[in-house]
Amino acid sequence: MTYRAPVSDITFCLDHIVGFDRVQAASTFEEATTDVVQAILTEAGRICEEVIAPLNRAGDLHPARLENGVVRTSPGFAEGYKAIAEAGFLAISGDPEYGGMGLPLTVTTAVNEMIGSACLSLELNPLMTQGQIEALEHHASDAIKDLYLPKLNTGEWSGTMNLTEPQAGSDVGALTTKAVPNEDGTYAISGQKIYISWGDHDMTENIVHLVLARLPDAPKGTKGISLFLVPKKIPDEKGNPGVANSLSVVSLEHKLGLHGSPTCVMQYDGAQGWLIGEENKGMAAMFTMMNNARLGVGVQGLSIAEAAYQQALEFAQERKQGRSPVENGTGTILDHADVRRMLIEMKAEVFAARAMALDLAVSLDLAKTGDAAAKARAALLTPIAKTYGTETGIKLANMGIQVHGGMGVIEETGAAQFARDVRVTAIYEGTNGIQAMDLVGRKLMDGGTAAFALIDEIEAAGHDTVSAMAQELRRTTEHLLTLEPNDRFGGAVPYLMAFARVLGAHYHAKAAESGDKTRQALAQYHLTRLLPEAQGLMAQARCGAEGLYDLSADDLAA
Amino acid sequence: MTYRAPVSDITFCLDHIVGFDRVQAASTFEEATTDVVQAILTEAGRICEEVIAPLNRAGDLHPARLENGVVRTSPGFAEGYKAIAEAGFLAISGDPEYGGMGLPLTVTTAVNEMIGSACLSLELNPLMTQGQIEALEHHASDAIKDLYLPKLNTGEWSGTMNLTEPQAGSDVGALTTKAVPNEDGTYAISGQKIYISWGDHDMTENIVHLVLARLPDAPKGTKGISLFLVPKKIPDEKGNPGVANSLSVVSLEHKLGLHGSPTCVMQYDGAQGWLIGEENKGMAAMFTMMNNARLGVGVQGLSIAEAAYQQALEFAQERKQGRSPVENGTGTILDHADVRRMLIEMKAEVFAARAMALDLAVSLDLAKTGDAAAKARAALLTPIAKTYGTETGIKLANMGIQVHGGMGVIEETGAAQFARDVRVTAIYEGTNGIQAMDLVGRKLMDGGTAAFALIDEIEAAGHDTVSAMAQELRRTTEHLLTLEPNDRFGGAVPYLMAFARVLGAHYHAKAAESGDKTRQALAQYHLTRLLPEAQGLMAQARCGAEGLYDLSADDLAA
Repeated sequence: MTYRAPVSDITFCLDHIVGFDRVQAASTFEEATTDVVQAILTEAGRICEEVIAPLNRAGDLHPARLENGVVRTSPGFAEGYKAIAEAGFLAISGDPEYGGMGLPLTVTTAVNEMIGSACLSLELNPLMTQGQIEALEHHASDAIKDLYLPKLNTGEWSGTMNLTEPQAGSDVGALTTKAVPNEDGTYAISGQKIYISWGDHDMTENIVHLVLARLPDAPKGTKGISLFLVPKKIPDEKGNPGVANSLSVVSLEHKLGLHGSPTCVMQYDGAQGWLIGEENKGMAAMFTMMNNARLGVGVQGLSIAEAAYQQALEFAQERKQGRSPVENGTGTILDHADVRRMLIEMKAEVFAARAMALDLAVSLDLAKTGDAAAKARAALLTPIAKTYGTETGIKLANMGIQVHGGMGVIEETGAAQFARDVRVTAIYEGTNGIQAMDLVGRKLMDGGTAAFALIDEIEAAGHDTVSAMAQELRRTTEHLLTLEPNDRFGGAVPYLMAFARVLGAHYHAKAAESGDKTRQALAQYHLTRLLPEAQGLMAQARCGAEGLYDLSADDLAA
Repeated sequence: MTYRAPVSDITFCLDHIVGFDRVQAASTFEEATTDVVQAILTEAGRICEEVIAPLNRAGDLHPARLENGVVRTSPGFAEGYKAIAEAGFLAISGDPEYGGMGLPLTVTTAVNEMIGSACLSLELNPLMTQGQIEALEHHASDAIKDLYLPKLNTGEWSGTMNLTEPQAGSDVGALTTKAVPNEDGTYAISGQKIYISWGDHDMTENIVHLVLARLPDAPKGTKGISLFLVPKKIPDEKGNPGVANSLSVVSLEHKLGLHGSPTCVMQYDGAQGWLIGEENKGMAAMFTMMNNARLGVGVQGLSIAEAAYQQALEFAQERKQGRSPVENGTGTILDHADVRRMLIEMKAEVFAARAMALDLAVSLDLAKTGDAAAKARAALLTPIAKTYGTETGIKLANMGIQVHGGMGVIEETGAAQFARDVRVTAIYEGTNGIQAMDLVGRKLMDGGTAAFALIDEIEAAGHDTVSAMAQELRRTTEHLLTLEPNDRFGGAVPYLMAFARVLGAHYHAKAAESGDKTRQALAQYHLTRLLPEAQGLMAQARCGAEGLYDLSADDLAA
């Protein structure tokens, strides 16, 4: 398949949907002129089309492998990574004081979308590093920042995040990795971490791990967790990679997808680590990284949604099959109403997912300029954009297979790879169930202020169909607020998806105002065919946990 | 994972939902006493649990491979196949005159469900043979029946169906394989066929291909297609496999799933074939096979739905994670509302899919006894059961992965294999889009008589919630009948899924009448959370093709 970077679609969203000009108007981002942003997007598009996309299939066919304790990456990945690093894509939103470009996260988000469409398994590497840069900027000491951030911004070194342990997945508080103070102020880290994306590889001269661990006598649960920086090679006096640290890769996972991305079991045996932030405040520091990563993972779903759409359309345009049911048809399956339904639905979903991701990115950028309302909006949008983005990626990869017919399950076409690669995005960085619990739990702890503000905004746009559904969303939200948390959780995922449907309709209605015929057709599709789903979803949401605990494990197994 | 055959759930459906006693009361099926049926289901359950299920992972890890022109099957598959054949499972519904048991298709359907849960890639082999037995019983000459049916019923020989060619997929009429008459009344078959499931293997001494081909000067399109029987080895005078026929396996496909099932590209080079049925009437004969296969493929979706549910429940019961949100919880993730929501939804969907498959099977059996209404009902239910069964398999395999969290994408758990294996079921035997077009096209050509009869039946059951939705389904059906075929096609898939939702609710409401607490809870779940989806689906259905042709290929690509 030939990937075509959707720079003009991204630009349309920035200009007409998410109000990127508000970010550009802030003094924090005065460098982010339209010319600069366009230049970056265009160059990113070119690199993704020409350099990164051709690597995708090789990553699937020739997975990263562990040889004598070292991870060897898929053919061409090192060159692809180098192109990303040298173009400065790791540094787009980094602090200029440490080699970053200081540009909005919105720009990073747009670039990441394209890299992910081109090769998702490779894109996961810079995504982790970008998150680490953000975490270190916020929480690390000046010495650590001086030493590590320039290397991470250039991509000379890459970053990982180490949370999960075999007994501590979604329940991070159960982790047992230990950190014992050394005499020199550093710590000895010991324990095993699993699911460490890009935990080792041969593309950079050093790898920097952020590891959650417990100090001796730390309180139980999440309140006793601290964050440590643990480099693979300990930097020498000059800041170059020195002696090897006491850590190793135990094994790689055999995964459904993302074969090009090594998922490591990491072993720390008294490895030297540096405390990041305060003792026992590791979760807060880690959340800085995770919130960015949640947007980033939502974008991964968008990436695959776009790529699957492009491939399905390309296939449909070429595949001759059956007597055309329409006059003056093309003779391809594109003449068939059901194939058109699938393709238009895919295009409509891609637009909504992109608008949502960029909307969240803009909110995060505005929050950085001190806008408190934007901060609350970003917090609300984070679980929605993560979940809707990834569910859309999964759905569209699946629809892409269907458009291909029998060819869809033949691995050579690549349609199936999209479905395999994107599946984990609904799980990592907090499962979509966890995201939905976050939305109806923590994010409604303000009494619904942020949610109602967003619903107000949607209603104020004045589109009757969308407003009517927004009003039902308001009533559903009010109902959830009357419930105990665990009752809300029983309807949390459908509630989140309903919210996403209403938001998507809002973006589409806005896009239709541009007068563009295609955007109007997509909006019409969304409002008449997809938005009505929100009603069924809200019916589910209002059920809460009603009846969910009536059956015992034995009843379920009977 | 440990597969546990759901014999009691199947029996419940037979006794309380689908009226299997009506089949048993017919003189055609007087052998199908409750004792006989129970004995077969119990034995099938045992074989599936003990012999077949242990093969499933090996089939995935060690795909069938082509060696020197011969397909070598996955480890243990030959023994598994032998167990199925020796238990007589190929012959359950075969004509007793040719070694069959003469039992209802309903019994075959129930047994196939269990084999498919245990190992879907292996189950596809007997499914093809069963379809071939049915086709030959209806269309072959006595000489062919005498020679082939006993071998197929015992499973000594297996059967395939050869429709697809590279340029002729859903559009079977475009096929070009040639059949030239020989002087002895046989035909020389030449051409290439693709996607031939179990086109070759080492588990039986002979393989019998049913091949669609064109006679010289045959009319264009589907009206010029004839059906031929082409054995791998031509039977000698004694009916034993003799000399090799002129056919070969060119290659095997690399597929997303079903690795244990060899998908062959078959080459026929003047292979000797025997005409089945009349010249140029091959499509009618093939449809006999395909209609059974459509039920069979719907059941494959059910098989994976059940297996995925069982595995997800087993995992949830063992996985300790997080502080329990409920008092006196189990300490496992089963305490979490969202996990319970997923598991209960899975169980509710499995029930509906099973009830629908068995309902269709019973209708087909009653049709065999001369019941015209049952025949029309079966014709209507076929595309619905095929599509809903397979979509449910895909959905539940996906939910099963989600319940597993990170473990879901690790291949060793098997959760991902279910998702990979089931995906093709929405495509083969007529894509689900084709099924939906069949439903709103051919199956409404009676002016809606069969559809309205089924809706009448649902309303007559007198459950208010279900009746209200059935009335909306009636109105939607009436609306579709006012549309041109291609306009109906634009909303065909959502219409089919809405029909399935209403039917599923009907089965659940019926099950709740049993007074069983679990069945009532599942019914409550379906009626309050899943049935409301039908409204959104019907809104889509009523849109028809509205707007779908407003965008050109260039608009879609822009």
